Amino acid sequence: MDPIQSLDQVRDLLRDLPGANDGAMAAAKLREATLVKPPGALGRLEELAEWLSGWQGHHPPKAERCQVAVFAGSHGVTAEGVSAFPPEVTEQMVEGFKKGAAAINQLCQIQGCELRIYEVAVEIPTRNFMEQPAMEDDECAEAMAFGMSAVEEGLDVLCLGEMGIGNTTAAAAVCHGLFNQDGETWVGPGTGVAGDTLTNKIRVVNEGVAKHKDAMTDGLEVLRHVGGRELAAMAGAIIAARLQRIPIVLDGYVCTAAAAVLQAVNPAALDHCVVGHVSAEPGHLKLLASLEKKALLDLGMRLGEGSGAALAVSILHAAVACHTGMGSFDQAGVAEKIAD
Amino acid sequence: MDPIQSLDQVRDLLRDLPGANDGAMAAAKLREATLVKPPGALGRLEELAEWLSGWQGHHPPKAERCQVAVFAGSHGVTAEGVSAFPPEVTEQMVEGFKKGAAAINQLCQIQGCELRIYEVAVEIPTRNFMEQPAMEDDECAEAMAFGMSAVEEGLDVLCLGEMGIGNTTAAAAVCHGLFNQDGETWVGPGTGVAGDTLTNKIRVVNEGVAKHKDAMTDGLEVLRHVGGRELAAMAGAIIAARLQRIPIVLDGYVCTAAAAVLQAVNPAALDHCVVGHVSAEPGHLKLLASLEKKALLDLGMRLGEGSGAALAVSILHAAVACHTGMGSFDQAGVAEKIAD
Repeated sequence: MDPIQSLDQVRDLLRDLPGANDGAMAAAKLREATLVKPPGALGRLEELAEWLSGWQGHHPPKAERCQVAVFAGSHGVTAEGVSAFPPEVTEQMVEGFKKGAAAINQLCQIQGCELRIYEVAVEIPTRNFMEQPAMEDDECAEAMAFGMSAVEEGLDVLCLGEMGIGNTTAAAAVCHGLFNQDGETWVGPGTGVAGDTLTNKIRVVNEGVAKHKDAMTDGLEVLRHVGGRELAAMAGAIIAARLQRIPIVLDGYVCTAAAAVLQAVNPAALDHCVVGHVSAEPGHLKLLASLEKKALLDLGMRLGEGSGAALAVSILHAAVACHTGMGSFDQAGVAEKIAD
Repeated sequence: MDPIQSLDQVRDLLRDLPGANDGAMAAAKLREATLVKPPGALGRLEELAEWLSGWQGHHPPKAERCQVAVFAGSHGVTAEGVSAFPPEVTEQMVEGFKKGAAAINQLCQIQGCELRIYEVAVEIPTRNFMEQPAMEDDECAEAMAFGMSAVEEGLDVLCLGEMGIGNTTAAAAVCHGLFNQDGETWVGPGTGVAGDTLTNKIRVVNEGVAKHKDAMTDGLEVLRHVGGRELAAMAGAIIAARLQRIPIVLDGYVCTAAAAVLQAVNPAALDHCVVGHVSAEPGHLKLLASLEKKALLDLGMRLGEGSGAALAVSILHAAVACHTGMGSFDQAGVAEKIAD
């Protein structure tokens, strides 16, 4: 497939996404019923084994080759003073990822996850959406194509993460653009703003979205007008993973906001995605409710960089290990349930 | 220390439990503040690193040698028809644990946890508490002493679990005895009872607790009258771990009910314990609220056998890995937060 060059090509892709493999999902369900435990006693671990099978398209499911892809981008809206850190921290953190100094490095190491860091034109900030659309159509499509091309073959699971000073402002604007309500609903402290800076961040989101309201005619236009390059890249990766039968673990608020753009275009677009962790950033829980998703973990984290998704890989490992490794009632010589 | 032989000796131990090492906890807090992330952005992972340091009594904290100890016991109250499985399933499941066929085997394997299975006189059921106290004083003390002696030296973390057909009935009776309310508040489906069987289970808990009400003068008397040997053993292990500076991960409803007995005697008795997973068994969430504990995981599991605790070890591994492995702002050359 040639790289996409316009958002209309993305719309075409989103119209016709493949579904899960029902046979593989049914095979997983059948096996779950034989395992030596009361039916349903492993809760979401059972659901995850079935979900992995269905979206990987084979039974048993696998969680051997798991990768975390972190996309970094720069945001013109930082000119509005919306973050607690200066914009150059984005590149400094990328250097930290490369040196192995960040949380995501440690989390990948203990889970046995591969880590890939992608800079999505970090040297070119998006335009400040208080003045102009953050991206032109072809720029947004290019960032999505970049994310699509980043999805490697042969992965069992792909976790998405991001880094970008200013991107909780972009995420809040995307949510405000997609789901209405007001900026206050969607804006939170991000890296740690409070008081006047938080009030200013809410103002920026409200005014930015109001400015582009009429032009934001679908999810992709919301992404283009008030989103950012790393958000576009994550959205692209979600589409490419769907086409390559790779289940996705979403991370926190910014990552899920990027995903929400796709669900606004096609309500089934995120069926191959689970959410790793619900962020302490207050907008995330509201966003998950809007998407009808429940995160696997809730540990008060709000770091981004794929940390919540990477941590949730341990839950997928557990789901697969129980599904494939447990004995059946017959094999184990254990009496089954007394008939009701 | 000689093994305890009476519940009065346990009361003596509970009166004088050691506290956390404040210096080690402070050292962990100090290090957290230097790491390359916004303050608090790793949420409970940061708290866990500090908690582990404090209760292990050293900094940095360790989570290398983690063990899951599963205690199995038999319950006379199964004669009342309270479970969906026949009582012989307890021993069959113990055989399954030894063969490696159960969920807990898979979970220990992927986490690198040691697994120990302890049969607490499985061949001798407790008395049916509808007729007599489940245990005599010396029997209950013996089961607690057994649990205490099971705590091995040199562990970084100890996870507790249990197996015992009928033991969600015992756990519900313990909670009813400790916290009042009524049986209906504390009884759930356990391995999967519903309808008339569930109604009967509620009746058994209500009548059993009413029968022994006047004699249940403290937490240990509740344990003795309506608990069980594996519950007593877990309670003993919690005390021994405290004395040996080993932090504890509690499992589900039955395990936490056993722990609650100790907190009823000394409100600080569970300060070295976290709860791995909140069970789908409805009494567990209410019990955790009573104990002012929030579980690390909530994945709809209700299996027992240490499964929720073992799964939560992955969170402890993550906490220690981030705490010890991340770089500081200085080292990483990342600009710190803009002053507010």
